[in-house]
Amino acid sequence: MLRRALLTASRSDRVRDLITSAPGTRRVVRRFVAGRSLEAAVGVAGRLAGAGLRVSLDHLGEDTADRAQADHMREVCIRAIGALGEAGLTGAAEISLKLSSLGQALGADGNRIAFDNAATVCAAAAAHGTTVTLDMEDHTTTDATLAVLRDLRADFPSVGAVLQAYLRRTEADCRDLATPGSRVRLCKGAYREPASVAFVEPHEVDLSYVRCLKVLMTGAGYPMVASHDPRLIAIAADLAARSGRSPGDFEYQMLYGVRPDEQRRLAAAGETVRVYVPFGEEWYGYLMRRLAERPANVAFFARALLSRD
Amino acid sequence: MLRRALLTASRSDRVRDLITSAPGTRRVVRRFVAGRSLEAAVGVAGRLAGAGLRVSLDHLGEDTADRAQADHMREVCIRAIGALGEAGLTGAAEISLKLSSLGQALGADGNRIAFDNAATVCAAAAAHGTTVTLDMEDHTTTDATLAVLRDLRADFPSVGAVLQAYLRRTEADCRDLATPGSRVRLCKGAYREPASVAFVEPHEVDLSYVRCLKVLMTGAGYPMVASHDPRLIAIAADLAARSGRSPGDFEYQMLYGVRPDEQRRLAAAGETVRVYVPFGEEWYGYLMRRLAERPANVAFFARALLSRD
Repeated sequence: MLRRALLTASRSDRVRDLITSAPGTRRVVRRFVAGRSLEAAVGVAGRLAGAGLRVSLDHLGEDTADRAQADHMREVCIRAIGALGEAGLTGAAEISLKLSSLGQALGADGNRIAFDNAATVCAAAAAHGTTVTLDMEDHTTTDATLAVLRDLRADFPSVGAVLQAYLRRTEADCRDLATPGSRVRLCKGAYREPASVAFVEPHEVDLSYVRCLKVLMTGAGYPMVASHDPRLIAIAADLAARSGRSPGDFEYQMLYGVRPDEQRRLAAAGETVRVYVPFGEEWYGYLMRRLAERPANVAFFARALLSRD
Repeated sequence: MLRRALLTASRSDRVRDLITSAPGTRRVVRRFVAGRSLEAAVGVAGRLAGAGLRVSLDHLGEDTADRAQADHMREVCIRAIGALGEAGLTGAAEISLKLSSLGQALGADGNRIAFDNAATVCAAAAAHGTTVTLDMEDHTTTDATLAVLRDLRADFPSVGAVLQAYLRRTEADCRDLATPGSRVRLCKGAYREPASVAFVEPHEVDLSYVRCLKVLMTGAGYPMVASHDPRLIAIAADLAARSGRSPGDFEYQMLYGVRPDEQRRLAAAGETVRVYVPFGEEWYGYLMRRLAERPANVAFFARALLSRD
């Protein structure tokens, strides 16, 4: 399976070197990543906000291997929040956080370190009138991340969660999180997971997504429909209407560089649409997951790799 | 005269301390200045570009007193250009440069230092597919700045000039610069100038502006109509139509924070509208000129100074 091969390749140093040095890679990266610098990312956030879209800014990085790097990741997020505030963008732009970038994998203390770093970022976000959403990573971290989420929400109730429809557990997690004020992003999931914990067939994942969406839309929280799948978007619109939700009572989310015309079309129709905007140096893992989840992206990438600039 | 008093006050250290420490100052600065950091400025540039406006980004600073500061100003401009490029904004955003910030006043070598720094910035802009406009300062530097402009244009023909309608010489300068490919921003002028070189009565300045505009609109260059004056904007539209210019054959320019609704209205009507976006720490001189040129801004400032946050 192509998807499985790509997610495996994403862990290979040799494949990594091959891809990062290929002449067409830069163009592919530019399509999905809003620049290496914070300046560029805030510029992209501004451009999207000016066009009526919302933003969730993600400083790329995962599996941080030491404390200093975890603290550095926290500081970049805080600088990003300050810059969004200065630019008058905190009404439109929030921050997405990966706990593994903030130290979650640093041994026995990992969860506490990640929690402390995330809490500091949440405090900065609150001071600037914006919010944070905790990204979800592979299934081995789901319980720990949900525990950190609960603790963060004690002080920062607007912290958002991410649930992945491909996990068998997610429908139950949706029920737990569909409470008043609870922001929940529902995505399909992009990591390589064993069949024991995850649905493998795309059709099964779609069915799970719809079941989870029903729970969220009929629940008391704020659903964030993270999908580029036209059928799921149509189903979400239908479920929202049948649950008495208006635009603004839920939102659509898509990735930077994926279906930009559809992002603008939905926003022009009055829907709330948030674009997930990654930036920074560590784009490799992110890019591999984007290629793995959509064959059209692989074709685009292959063409770019064969080109000469 | 209020204007004269404000421009004199802008040179007084005591007035400066009083104003920079006043509690309401921050709010006034935020209205006219797009943040202290480059990140914030690029964010604002993005927001404007997303809304269909063009931008000229200005790193605040003038009367640079030593070589290191001049070089620093150059480097910030180059970083700004790189960030605009990364964010995909160089199609919409250019850079404005003050030669005095790049070392023009540094003794006998000043013009050469400023030229070298400006040429480096122009090269960076060209590499990223954008342009530079040379701001104009007080009348003692007009000849030197026009000489640097001529030299820069030998290598970078798209470098823009600024001419100030309140100077008696400007109509003749417009004739000199109304050549093919020549970008000329026409403003009224905001420095305190003696009657020997400048028109003093507002009515005289307006008449000069219209005469200069006629030269530029009927000439071969690209006129940039920098004014917030509704009558002058209406006259510019009329002159453009009578000269056979379509939207895109000339542009309107306004300052960040001044008549933002009019900026969007003109852009929505299909006109090219560029917003001058200053950022950085050295906002004092810029803010004083903005207050001096418009009584409404002084009233806004006075209210803010009397408020408590």
